[in-house]
Amino acid sequence: MALLRAELGDRVDTSPDALAAVRADKSGHASDGTPLAVVHAASVSDVQAVMRIATATRTPVVPRGAGTGLAGGANTGGGEIALSLRGMDRLLEVRPDDLLAVVEPGIVNAELNALLEPHGVWWAPDPASRAISTVGGNIATGAGGLLCAKYGVVRDAVLGVDLVLADGRLMHLGHRSVKGVTGLDLTSLVIGSEGTLGVVVGATLKLRRLVEGERVTLTALFDGVRAAAVASAAVTASGVQPAIMELMDARCLAAVHRLLSLPEPPPGAAQLTIQTDGPVAAAEARTIAAVLTAAGGTVSVAADDAEGEELLAVRRSMHAAMESLGTTLIEDVSVPRSALPAMFDEIARIERKYGLVIPTVAHSGDGNLHPNFVFEGPDVPPIVWEAAEEVFRAALELGGTLTGEHGIGVLKRRWLADELGDDQWQLQREIARVFDPLGILNPGKVFAA
Amino acid sequence: MALLRAELGDRVDTSPDALAAVRADKSGHASDGTPLAVVHAASVSDVQAVMRIATATRTPVVPRGAGTGLAGGANTGGGEIALSLRGMDRLLEVRPDDLLAVVEPGIVNAELNALLEPHGVWWAPDPASRAISTVGGNIATGAGGLLCAKYGVVRDAVLGVDLVLADGRLMHLGHRSVKGVTGLDLTSLVIGSEGTLGVVVGATLKLRRLVEGERVTLTALFDGVRAAAVASAAVTASGVQPAIMELMDARCLAAVHRLLSLPEPPPGAAQLTIQTDGPVAAAEARTIAAVLTAAGGTVSVAADDAEGEELLAVRRSMHAAMESLGTTLIEDVSVPRSALPAMFDEIARIERKYGLVIPTVAHSGDGNLHPNFVFEGPDVPPIVWEAAEEVFRAALELGGTLTGEHGIGVLKRRWLADELGDDQWQLQREIARVFDPLGILNPGKVFAA
Repeated sequence: MALLRAELGDRVDTSPDALAAVRADKSGHASDGTPLAVVHAASVSDVQAVMRIATATRTPVVPRGAGTGLAGGANTGGGEIALSLRGMDRLLEVRPDDLLAVVEPGIVNAELNALLEPHGVWWAPDPASRAISTVGGNIATGAGGLLCAKYGVVRDAVLGVDLVLADGRLMHLGHRSVKGVTGLDLTSLVIGSEGTLGVVVGATLKLRRLVEGERVTLTALFDGVRAAAVASAAVTASGVQPAIMELMDARCLAAVHRLLSLPEPPPGAAQLTIQTDGPVAAAEARTIAAVLTAAGGTVSVAADDAEGEELLAVRRSMHAAMESLGTTLIEDVSVPRSALPAMFDEIARIERKYGLVIPTVAHSGDGNLHPNFVFEGPDVPPIVWEAAEEVFRAALELGGTLTGEHGIGVLKRRWLADELGDDQWQLQREIARVFDPLGILNPGKVFAA
Repeated sequence: MALLRAELGDRVDTSPDALAAVRADKSGHASDGTPLAVVHAASVSDVQAVMRIATATRTPVVPRGAGTGLAGGANTGGGEIALSLRGMDRLLEVRPDDLLAVVEPGIVNAELNALLEPHGVWWAPDPASRAISTVGGNIATGAGGLLCAKYGVVRDAVLGVDLVLADGRLMHLGHRSVKGVTGLDLTSLVIGSEGTLGVVVGATLKLRRLVEGERVTLTALFDGVRAAAVASAAVTASGVQPAIMELMDARCLAAVHRLLSLPEPPPGAAQLTIQTDGPVAAAEARTIAAVLTAAGGTVSVAADDAEGEELLAVRRSMHAAMESLGTTLIEDVSVPRSALPAMFDEIARIERKYGLVIPTVAHSGDGNLHPNFVFEGPDVPPIVWEAAEEVFRAALELGGTLTGEHGIGVLKRRWLADELGDDQWQLQREIARVFDPLGILNPGKVFAA
């Protein structure tokens, strides 16, 4: 601590409020014990100083952005230093001609895009948390969002990262060109590594031109979630690629309508919300409307952008609506798109088996489901974990994965080897050890001790 | 050898022709010494058997597809086993609804796409070698091609790989869903690893729908290569995204015209060949034609698809045209797109300094240049390596990379640390050692001994 203060002065924060805040993220889960300190890094050399001291004293360090994670990946526990990158939030370079930008990690996703817009470009990853989450956090978790089926995930949108290793050395990974295959692709390895390989202190982002043409938003109501899931798969199979395709089951839809004081939807009704964009958006929307109607949906098309935004606001209010019902564990399985109806069948079966309700929303265009477990009190009851485990197992059996975009963190580490297999779990762990031989980088996350 | 024969029977080939063939690839460079054997693997268990024997006897193994590499990455030397995956060439599964396919590694890129077409889907990576190179080789090198700026590189088009480790264990890396962030992204790490991490024995590929709408092909002649490069950067900066944008300098253009017995182009003339596709291809082609004309180009638009293919055939005949001039060392630097004119200036400077001619073609839409060094006889003269080194250094100084799509292999390993830095070189080497502790997987490639 004295070493930290000597090098970093008042950027070392040990106020009780600060220490309490870094114990948790948006998952609601909090670490045990009281962290040693929060360091508000202002520069790359601050980060290097922290890591050198941490290595010398073998002190665990937990890198942190805005703390909006949903897997406990940035939760800081007793004896650990929280290393906040939130203050390093500059946009350092924009090159519309090369479709790239260089940023510090603490810049908020939506603020970056506001700065990019006058240049006619944007960074495509759009997690639902984009108004509050940082680009560094998006990279650390390998974030997704609503637009992924058409515009890709974080892995598709990063050319390079600057990484401070456990011992304080700085590495420039990746490149600034569209193509580049010099050596191993460590940039991709860092994306989604949740702070276990190093501290991301900068990134070269791959941009896109702003999409020209119009946006068309439509909704379709179905008798139940299975019918909506079948319709979603039919849209994907039709070959038309919507920018956004979101599915809300009956409980989610009802909860949001209540929260927003909207007229109650028909009982049991599930909804698809779809947006097309680009030069042929209107024609695509017509094709999709026909597919949805044929699948038994009742289709409404927004008259204009403002009405389209209102329709999407229903989907965007999901998190708030769930919070209004109680404490929520938001799960994050992902399956091949054709398996979406089968996955909803599994969720219904698990609801019946455990006597739980599991309101579920899905990025159905890419097969990523967020089943919400709602309960009372701060701790996840054992029966909820049992049911969640059965959801994970069902996703794996359908060819899916434990986590589409939130990461493993602490909340899913005990199931990691179930998906990877013991051999791959061990191999991944050994790779992390090459970056961090002392095991001081975000210990206990991803790989259970 | 007795162990190999006992387990693999007549799939072990020690005929002098076979042993001679695996010493080289399409780079022209050949390994020293005579390989021990070529094993024609017919199954995953064959590959596992070879690796178990190799580990027990500490024998180096060089995985090999069709041998079309341009960096010597699959060249097999004295005391080494060439492990050919070429015979494992089945398309195992196509799921148009999930936009994925599962393949064995030996399937040829163009043959895969011929099989996918009736399903209305395609695999986008299109190296110039697509008619002769395998998907496994495309993955091992992280191949690019002509369509990358619009449709991505191999890294963007692979969801998972099955990998046999040095000790014979089989690992399933990656996933079948659009999203997935469970653990470290080892799939990306394997892409472009040139056989140093394991043997790719299967892959789950991310497909695209066939592009609807028309294709429009146009060419523009310019007074010189610099004007063509400036025009190419202007097209990129205009915001219109061509599917293909290729640049040929005066020497390339003249050589191809001679080879194909076409009327000679104006002296010193360089050419851009551009193709747009999709629903607004015609409008995009008009915009591009205006940009090219404003940049001083003489534009011709193909009347139909057949004429468009003729125009592209000129570009596709480059390799043959260079071979008609002598032995060729094809280089592969990549720079940010805006640096393309500056890179051509550097190549002109290096030509003058060394008294060499360096005919250069570029995937100018993505900033990837192939400078060709033409000489007599089988061995690269020292002065050519000196000039090539200066080309590499110029690319790095312009924010570029040593290799856009061909890989490091043996031919560029001595410059790898110049780009990565010594620390990152060492880190990458240690990561490779986690997969291959004995160093028997493609030793001497990528990482110089």
